[in-house]
Amino acid sequence: MTRLKNDNFLRALKRQPVDRQPIWIMRQAGRYLPEYRETRAKAGSFLALCKTPELACEVTLQPLARFDLDAAIVFSDILTVPDAMGLELYFAENEGPRFMRSLKNEADIRQLSVPDPEVELRYVMDTIRLIQHELKGRLPLIGFAGSPWTVACYMLEGGSSKKQFDNIRRMAYENPPLLTHLLEILTQATIHYLNAQIQSGVDAVMLFDTWGGLLSPTQYEAFSLRYMQKITEACGTTPTIIFTKNAGLNLAGIAESGCSGVGVDWTMPLDLAKTITQGKVAIQGNLDPLALFAPEITLHHDIEQILKTMKNYPGFIFNLGHGILPNTPPEKVAYLVDTVHGC
Amino acid sequence: MTRLKNDNFLRALKRQPVDRQPIWIMRQAGRYLPEYRETRAKAGSFLALCKTPELACEVTLQPLARFDLDAAIVFSDILTVPDAMGLELYFAENEGPRFMRSLKNEADIRQLSVPDPEVELRYVMDTIRLIQHELKGRLPLIGFAGSPWTVACYMLEGGSSKKQFDNIRRMAYENPPLLTHLLEILTQATIHYLNAQIQSGVDAVMLFDTWGGLLSPTQYEAFSLRYMQKITEACGTTPTIIFTKNAGLNLAGIAESGCSGVGVDWTMPLDLAKTITQGKVAIQGNLDPLALFAPEITLHHDIEQILKTMKNYPGFIFNLGHGILPNTPPEKVAYLVDTVHGC
Repeated sequence: MTRLKNDNFLRALKRQPVDRQPIWIMRQAGRYLPEYRETRAKAGSFLALCKTPELACEVTLQPLARFDLDAAIVFSDILTVPDAMGLELYFAENEGPRFMRSLKNEADIRQLSVPDPEVELRYVMDTIRLIQHELKGRLPLIGFAGSPWTVACYMLEGGSSKKQFDNIRRMAYENPPLLTHLLEILTQATIHYLNAQIQSGVDAVMLFDTWGGLLSPTQYEAFSLRYMQKITEACGTTPTIIFTKNAGLNLAGIAESGCSGVGVDWTMPLDLAKTITQGKVAIQGNLDPLALFAPEITLHHDIEQILKTMKNYPGFIFNLGHGILPNTPPEKVAYLVDTVHGC
Repeated sequence: MTRLKNDNFLRALKRQPVDRQPIWIMRQAGRYLPEYRETRAKAGSFLALCKTPELACEVTLQPLARFDLDAAIVFSDILTVPDAMGLELYFAENEGPRFMRSLKNEADIRQLSVPDPEVELRYVMDTIRLIQHELKGRLPLIGFAGSPWTVACYMLEGGSSKKQFDNIRRMAYENPPLLTHLLEILTQATIHYLNAQIQSGVDAVMLFDTWGGLLSPTQYEAFSLRYMQKITEACGTTPTIIFTKNAGLNLAGIAESGCSGVGVDWTMPLDLAKTITQGKVAIQGNLDPLALFAPEITLHHDIEQILKTMKNYPGFIFNLGHGILPNTPPEKVAYLVDTVHGC
């Protein structure tokens, strides 16, 4: 870690003292930045951008040039893994992610196999190597993957869901062994994928469990947390963050899963998150992304509230409670970062 | 209440002793029933069905003919109120609700006025009168409305949201006085609407707050609970149920709002719901609607777990944790009702 000029993010994740309050922003390389929109136009599509290491590296670095952030995160998507498994990801205009081939029956699921990350996902590894070359040890780089449950949600639905991913939730009741088989394969794929990212140079990894909160607590443990725990264990000494949206009181189980830190969304007060996790993990969160549309005085108040609540907590990473929205004013992001750093 | 042959639902809601465990099912008059699909085809559209009292009465009674339920609920929709305010509701095929006119600017909001429920919503009152005539005091009848926050979510979005109702959530930060104005009008409209329903003969009312769980706890109190509390108070002695989906720990505030009962979704364990609400209210819930796709042995186990947890709790109403799904097998509903009644 001594190789990094600013390792505050990693130190917070390990619950060690920091020089200043670290902050990064989920989806910090994204559509709210005009320079991102330009690069994306050049790439032709979101997926082409993910799959072109030079351009993916370029957009990864863009927010770092604008804002004094404490971490970079690889520009990619949680659905690269099923794409690599042959489902063929694409993004229909204003429609969110879709697969050319979704999982329609048991045979579709049984024939899935674990992709080789250095072959089918080679473009992600090349992106990481490029970013590390450009970063030159300035900042830590975060790699990531979707949780097996969340990725399976999309695979069984064929893409985004208008409802609440009823296909997978139905399978959880109708055919739990088949769902377990799918989750096991995705767990193996994710372990290989994240370890390849670690080999390629990421300093920490994050699991995005966007849809774990759709489950009852019993099913959450059985179908989501269980597999994230296996992945966390398989990441060895690399620090890990688990972010389940709408985790609620499932945060207690997450904090005991062996991860280094937990992501907290804006519906969970941070004082409660502290109580529930009992000082076992670093905490990352949780400003409402919509707060960046408020007048500065309101935004300032909300930032201060979070900093006050987490003051002297060993291991706090400032972030939004969910990804930044496409139409967020970039100057509000600058204001946020500077306020958190106490400028 | 002596006029009712089976008043177990109302007694449970008032936390009085019952003869048997009452149960009803959110969206019990719905697409999972072939006879409903027939009547809806006759009506031409979902909205025409709502607006034709004879047919709305017919579908309200259909589940009661099949299943030994302990309450009827008026067949209607939470968006009848904005429709009556001139937004013109319609349902695009497989697209969910849409408005011909959504609220696009401050002027649109400022010109809204409170509709007269006996004029613009007369069809709902006629439906209630017809149902009561047909029910002949067999069972209690539940009236309902959407919460002001939830109805405003759709009004500002123009219908369902692909994201998470960013328009209204942005307004909550950008222009809270304007949002407050909208919520106040909706609160007045809902008070008039529910009181007209009570006058027309409903025995209890329920507020559906489908999207309150999108808010941080502070905003939930300010923009959702506050207005539901006003409505609850304005319903006088008529028992009220508040159901906020994904309420989480906001359940504590709901239990103190003066409502008679709280709805609980499947993500909240009932023992925790008991702890949080501290015996102040009746509790209604919370079988996962997807559990009705499980084999009987699994379904039986899940029902038993709920009954065991709520055994001897004064004021428990069995229900699903959310509306029943269109493709649910009706025979599983029969199995559920009979199991809850201990047949």
